[in-house]
Amino acid sequence: MNVTKARPTGTPAASAGSGALPLALTQGDPAGIGPEIAMKAWLRRKSEALPPFFLLSDPAFIATRAARLGLDLPIAAATPETAAAVFAAALPVVDTGHSVTIEPGAPSASTAASTLAAIDEAVALTFAGRAAAVVTNPIAKHVLYAAGFRHPGHTEYLAALSAAYLPAGTPAPLPVMTLWSPALAVVPVTIHIALAEVPSRLTTALIVETAQIVARDLQSRFGIPAPRLVVAGLNPHAGEGGAMGGEDIAIIAPAIAALRGAGIDARGPLPADTLFHAEARAGYDAALCMYHDQALIPIKTIAFDDAVNVTLGLPIVRTSPDHGTAFDIAARGIARPASLCAALRLAAHLAATEAARSS
Amino acid sequence: MNVTKARPTGTPAASAGSGALPLALTQGDPAGIGPEIAMKAWLRRKSEALPPFFLLSDPAFIATRAARLGLDLPIAAATPETAAAVFAAALPVVDTGHSVTIEPGAPSASTAASTLAAIDEAVALTFAGRAAAVVTNPIAKHVLYAAGFRHPGHTEYLAALSAAYLPAGTPAPLPVMTLWSPALAVVPVTIHIALAEVPSRLTTALIVETAQIVARDLQSRFGIPAPRLVVAGLNPHAGEGGAMGGEDIAIIAPAIAALRGAGIDARGPLPADTLFHAEARAGYDAALCMYHDQALIPIKTIAFDDAVNVTLGLPIVRTSPDHGTAFDIAARGIARPASLCAALRLAAHLAATEAARSS
Repeated sequence: MNVTKARPTGTPAASAGSGALPLALTQGDPAGIGPEIAMKAWLRRKSEALPPFFLLSDPAFIATRAARLGLDLPIAAATPETAAAVFAAALPVVDTGHSVTIEPGAPSASTAASTLAAIDEAVALTFAGRAAAVVTNPIAKHVLYAAGFRHPGHTEYLAALSAAYLPAGTPAPLPVMTLWSPALAVVPVTIHIALAEVPSRLTTALIVETAQIVARDLQSRFGIPAPRLVVAGLNPHAGEGGAMGGEDIAIIAPAIAALRGAGIDARGPLPADTLFHAEARAGYDAALCMYHDQALIPIKTIAFDDAVNVTLGLPIVRTSPDHGTAFDIAARGIARPASLCAALRLAAHLAATEAARSS
Repeated sequence: MNVTKARPTGTPAASAGSGALPLALTQGDPAGIGPEIAMKAWLRRKSEALPPFFLLSDPAFIATRAARLGLDLPIAAATPETAAAVFAAALPVVDTGHSVTIEPGAPSASTAASTLAAIDEAVALTFAGRAAAVVTNPIAKHVLYAAGFRHPGHTEYLAALSAAYLPAGTPAPLPVMTLWSPALAVVPVTIHIALAEVPSRLTTALIVETAQIVARDLQSRFGIPAPRLVVAGLNPHAGEGGAMGGEDIAIIAPAIAALRGAGIDARGPLPADTLFHAEARAGYDAALCMYHDQALIPIKTIAFDDAVNVTLGLPIVRTSPDHGTAFDIAARGIARPASLCAALRLAAHLAATEAARSS
């Protein structure tokens, strides 16, 4: 698929220019693996060809966690402006102003303010042109809820934050969760709902709006001139002409007709089980899926360690590793930074592509 | 996974002994690709290390189709008893007594009687000990329905035929569709129903009965002494403790508890998207999935060309290629026999394993 070609193969830092803005990386839940994978990513910055980034957290906490995990690396308090220069010799940490004290694996609502401050600051710095993009480490919703957080999730919170930076009267952005790897990009049209609710929550309008955002961002951020989309059916064999469920005909097919009418190269509804082998994947740039597992099963099957969660539809670039806080392994030093490294590279590439197009 | 080790790596014909029974291969819908892939499989019998098989069809029709497709191979009328000896030098065709005249790609109810006769005869010969197992080419239900066929599908028809050979009073066998490849075996607990019906059709009893059959046949036919099963959740993240759908807790978890109580190594419900990458697959022999695409997406993603459909739970061994009649390419000579070759090898291996255990 063309998205593969959009992957930075050299050093994204170089492609973005040596004076490029650094990425703002949030600490995520500090009891999880976020701090660990951030440090491990920095240690591998050369072998993984990582663009410069800074970590939004408490520098003293990060130094404590490094010692706790036996990680040997220099940590430097930085500002967004000094981070890129600092990056070569030390992990730049930009202080959120919140002191963090927490044991790995033992999450606590006491850290919620620092976790949210890192997100808020990353968004603010990106909108202010002081960071190229936002890369978020995993959070645990239940920890934040216990501290009064009221958003359905990370992505929705970022959408709400973004809305505040847009001119009054601008419609709220629809954040579109996309899972990306060099081999496959998938978009779940419905996401974190019970499977039983999927058929009733799926609408033609939702599919059309989602696909339009995907097509637009594949052009503007991934640099694909004419994105090719495929749309999975909801039912086995895409319903087999209505014999197994009517949604493919009643809901999905009209969405595809509308998209094609709007000049978007969309095909479907196609049987989901035939969409994801290598030969099929070569025929499109992104697959729209009707529910969580239909999208997540194929990408995690073929790219478990290095898939990236990228939010399309926001006015800023945001990526994230495709895994959770992993509290169960947070104290053990075994967390793998592969997905975070991929998220950092992709964020830099998307921001640079968009900047080049708009300049 | 252990199933991999069960795959014949040498020549299955040799492992089954030179005097082994041949496999009975049905013609499938003669307007589809069945005759073509049967002939192509025979042509590749050495490179694909295929066990001896005979094709149940009309020998004159097969010769006509070979000429139509420009395939150059000797075809010999045979009996089940002469087939193994014939196999080295010609494709053995056992006459069903039904004359077949049909153009590729143009299905007709006029061929239904011959298609069904081939299935009936394959089952009869296997029960009679004159064939080792049944391998079926794809059929088109709508063609058979037009001729008065009243079964929901191929597999259910085989179950009904099998029941007639069992002693009076024996419960009807529950056929369990399994998709197998060297890398992964998956079992959809519900199959060809609309996605909206899945939550209401899923029961604890159905999961338990299905898993028991899978565990038993993995032992007796695949030769795995202590099969390891995993069970996928229905909802995203297996419901996340009930936050996204209650079926994982109310329906699936009790089934796993019952299976473990019966001494079966079953784990779950596990988030479906984390079950199918290489590292996860190494931890189990078969994955029970709650619906069609949950099972078919991962196996077709990683083994599109050579997955095999194997029916567990029947008193006889039955395999089938994991694709349909492909009427659209039936006249073009481009059909690939990879899945049929894998189905033939697996059938011989399963029958030989079972025979060795029961002797």
